[in-house]
Amino acid sequence: MSNSNGPSAPTTVDFSAAFSAAFPGSRKVYVEQHGVRVPMREVELSNGEPAVRLYDTSGPEDHDVREGLPALRRAWIRARGDVEEAPRQFPQATWRREVPAGLSDRAAVRARAQAGRAVTQLHYARQGIVTPEMAFVAAREDVHPELVRSEVAQGRAIIPANVNHPELEPMVIGRRFLVKINANIGNSVVSSSIEEEVDKLKWATLWGADTVMDLSTGRDIHETREWVLRNAPVPIGTVPLYQALEKVGGRPEELTWEIYRDTLIEQAEQGVDYFTVHAGVLLRYIPRTARRVTGIVSRGGSIMAKWCLAHHKESFLYTHFREICEIMRAYDVSFSLGDGLRPGSIADANDEAQFAELRTQGELTRIAWEYDVQVMNEGPGHIPMHLIKANMDKQLEWCDEAPFYTLGPLTTDVAPGYDHITSAIGAAMIGWYGTAMLCYVTPKEHLGLPNREDVKAGVIAYKIAAHAADLAKGHPRAREWDDALSKARFEFRWRDQFNLSLDPVTARRFHDETLPAEGAKLAHFCSMCGPKFCSMEITQQVRDYAAEHGLEVGAAFEAGLDEKAQQFAVAGQLYVRTDE
Amino acid sequence: MSNSNGPSAPTTVDFSAAFSAAFPGSRKVYVEQHGVRVPMREVELSNGEPAVRLYDTSGPEDHDVREGLPALRRAWIRARGDVEEAPRQFPQATWRREVPAGLSDRAAVRARAQAGRAVTQLHYARQGIVTPEMAFVAAREDVHPELVRSEVAQGRAIIPANVNHPELEPMVIGRRFLVKINANIGNSVVSSSIEEEVDKLKWATLWGADTVMDLSTGRDIHETREWVLRNAPVPIGTVPLYQALEKVGGRPEELTWEIYRDTLIEQAEQGVDYFTVHAGVLLRYIPRTARRVTGIVSRGGSIMAKWCLAHHKESFLYTHFREICEIMRAYDVSFSLGDGLRPGSIADANDEAQFAELRTQGELTRIAWEYDVQVMNEGPGHIPMHLIKANMDKQLEWCDEAPFYTLGPLTTDVAPGYDHITSAIGAAMIGWYGTAMLCYVTPKEHLGLPNREDVKAGVIAYKIAAHAADLAKGHPRAREWDDALSKARFEFRWRDQFNLSLDPVTARRFHDETLPAEGAKLAHFCSMCGPKFCSMEITQQVRDYAAEHGLEVGAAFEAGLDEKAQQFAVAGQLYVRTDE
Repeated sequence: MSNSNGPSAPTTVDFSAAFSAAFPGSRKVYVEQHGVRVPMREVELSNGEPAVRLYDTSGPEDHDVREGLPALRRAWIRARGDVEEAPRQFPQATWRREVPAGLSDRAAVRARAQAGRAVTQLHYARQGIVTPEMAFVAAREDVHPELVRSEVAQGRAIIPANVNHPELEPMVIGRRFLVKINANIGNSVVSSSIEEEVDKLKWATLWGADTVMDLSTGRDIHETREWVLRNAPVPIGTVPLYQALEKVGGRPEELTWEIYRDTLIEQAEQGVDYFTVHAGVLLRYIPRTARRVTGIVSRGGSIMAKWCLAHHKESFLYTHFREICEIMRAYDVSFSLGDGLRPGSIADANDEAQFAELRTQGELTRIAWEYDVQVMNEGPGHIPMHLIKANMDKQLEWCDEAPFYTLGPLTTDVAPGYDHITSAIGAAMIGWYGTAMLCYVTPKEHLGLPNREDVKAGVIAYKIAAHAADLAKGHPRAREWDDALSKARFEFRWRDQFNLSLDPVTARRFHDETLPAEGAKLAHFCSMCGPKFCSMEITQQVRDYAAEHGLEVGAAFEAGLDEKAQQFAVAGQLYVRTDE
Repeated sequence: MSNSNGPSAPTTVDFSAAFSAAFPGSRKVYVEQHGVRVPMREVELSNGEPAVRLYDTSGPEDHDVREGLPALRRAWIRARGDVEEAPRQFPQATWRREVPAGLSDRAAVRARAQAGRAVTQLHYARQGIVTPEMAFVAAREDVHPELVRSEVAQGRAIIPANVNHPELEPMVIGRRFLVKINANIGNSVVSSSIEEEVDKLKWATLWGADTVMDLSTGRDIHETREWVLRNAPVPIGTVPLYQALEKVGGRPEELTWEIYRDTLIEQAEQGVDYFTVHAGVLLRYIPRTARRVTGIVSRGGSIMAKWCLAHHKESFLYTHFREICEIMRAYDVSFSLGDGLRPGSIADANDEAQFAELRTQGELTRIAWEYDVQVMNEGPGHIPMHLIKANMDKQLEWCDEAPFYTLGPLTTDVAPGYDHITSAIGAAMIGWYGTAMLCYVTPKEHLGLPNREDVKAGVIAYKIAAHAADLAKGHPRAREWDDALSKARFEFRWRDQFNLSLDPVTARRFHDETLPAEGAKLAHFCSMCGPKFCSMEITQQVRDYAAEHGLEVGAAFEAGLDEKAQQFAVAGQLYVRTDE
């Protein structure tokens, strides 16, 4: 059954075919470990090379979007015996799109903690319990489950996993683990639709988004989120303030604690895994932004600033913070403590307003931990390279090592249209310094809403930044991937090189622009140097020569054998030549 | 007169229109300072804001490509009275393209130092002479000419400026100055033509390339270079070894010192401003690459490695290095001491082979300086972030602070198709640490030859990296640009924001994808948040309110005036609304 105001299901894309189209030569495998089955992308290689397994965020294949994803976590949640299920307090009243009974039934019910209980991963970790969620992320990260439990217990890592989001494949955010990336989606008044948002979700996770924030501010905000959550294999974050603002007609000064609180519950019932809460924007900090070049650029920050100014009162997010903690503890929604006063330009980086708020984020982090609520802290923004490290250092110190989650940072303001690059630079650096999750920036930042191609460009730029950070941090598994690709490159296994890359189809297309023939995929040269000369080919010849003559290249020199050198001069003329 | 084997001039592009098409709202101005006229891009702003002047590399407008650029430096060179002009030793025998008499005449003559004299900028600087070239770069960089002279005299900066390249607008490479970028062009056997290479040169400098390397390895290598040089407002670098290799049919072991020497003279006569010379690849270092994942990836490095192996002799580049210095001193060709053993993968970063060569680069730097020859050192390559700084530190120490010129470095191997991004991350960092020039990497790196769009993508990514580095280094002029753009952004001066950006047309196009109406360029919102809510608009309201009521925002709080707060609640309802 469903009430329907519209005729079409919210997708036109064949998601089950998307994986194999995006990643030729790869297949999705499930690895059994620690009693759970975790998805991986397995890249098959030629020439007897072992297959490479990569972290995979693309979610289950072959499902009907209208039905939602399988409820992987439901049994785990129920088995803990600490939630109660009941009709939602804030269900969807009517559906604008036709929904099958399965989905509308799921959307009518919510789980929450039984009275007086905490159902957060932090609570379990502190009890010494390794949950299936912890086991799942341990298997994905190839670490011991106890490391996961310990990092979560100490507040240094979070596993955003609302009990109402059973479709989730759990993931961990913390600096001992792989650096994660978030992709933002969301419609606004002028653009986008439910269909587009679900498509962007699937598209973003296909390319590697570890979490997705639904920042919708336009129509159908509840229904859009329902479709997104029921199809999300990754944690979904939101800024509940945006929806609360919709409820008061877009007038910040009309916001009340009660409206906000009900919005939190509404979204927690739907299964949102983390909430951005700008509770660190205090009344007394606002004047410190008045002389900035770009004032307050965070939407949440400016909404709260306006509310505080209008009422000349302290922010209700701050004064009601403990009540917020109680709500989030009942569903295991994690805090993403917003940085509403983050700098919007190089000129405003690391200023008094920004750091005042960061100190308050630390204070709030410790309060949330009293309630067993998981916390990460949001960070900037626009920061020149030489000021980036101070952000990380202060966050670690002031926020007691809670995970840091930064937007970029953008390292210059002069390149609108290319801010995925200006910010990937800062993101890679701060990831290396210890930031646990990087919020992507697309080429459309500052200019408009991202479309599909922008989402992909942003995700790829951030996968690069995150992986570069993993390498620099010395993550034990990170190097394997680079080494496998470089070995394929060196051995002219072109297809392996393409298939191992972040975006195989683009890599192959670029190669084929100058050398489209199938045979070129076996050739020992490329169009950069042409067939007459290739440095890698020469190195191979150097090695082959040494091997054929039964000696190490080094030994050949040290012996100083002129005769061998002569032989090489002859053997070395065996080039790959096609043009003469 | 001209011998012609082909009917068409080497361009089909209207270059004079390119500047205004690429940079709407900008005009080219010439600033008179220190007795020279230097080009700048002047961005006119609205709303009474002062125009912003940016460094400009696009070269003179309104010239006929077949005639070449005006010979700006000819009078300066002749006035020094230390060169002799004579027919070239290696003129172009026949032209495959029709050339006007002006160009073919210019291509028949060469200048060189009178016997026993040095004509290098380093020589003049050491004599205490501020040349017009030094004055020119001082005006471009907005620094005192004496700083330029002093940095050049100490070998910490170079002004690549062959006496046979009078068309050059001089520029400086050194870490006290703006970080520069190089773009590579060049045909290979399988692809590209003279027309395309001249077009790529103009295109690269239009977007901001400070120098261009012509890495052609295919046909018509001399004639391509002649066209490139006669139309190059920026220094042109080459790897003479590539042409020498062509002369011996592509067989490295058949190279001789004499063939190489004549190639140096041939290219020096044409006006090449810097030569990459892989003289640091010593016989004894080659075995150290045998166990690498990607061996030797530098073309020049592998050519010389092969020669050394085949003859079992020390590299002729090393054994004849002093003769090379004498040639380069006679034309003022600068050394770019190549890093033939640079790592080609993350696995090979900072290894023994790489650093052994770097030490030898230092030794060669000091020898070149004995001859008053200008020197920079080339650096890697593929380096994970945590190993980048060691490269800069060792280069400064071992090479006595000669300018460093690095290729990227790429911070991961896993993203072929996106290596402009993997490498912009490393380039920005090493630029901050002190690298003077960054060699761009295009999206086609490892896959094929870059086309026009790839060249632009590479240049823009590297302009971002270089400017981010300038900001981080605290270059006094760098921040002006960011601040002007951010102020425009904050004040909703959309056209100013577009026009100030690195790529105005792309920025505007991205904006217009969702808000194409002309009126939207005046609107106080964009499609990201829509008209109902905009954080920047709210900040403006906060400020405006304070201004209207004659008080600082800060003061309003500190006075704690509830009445004022009430008034604000009313005034604050004046949104820009179009949808209700």
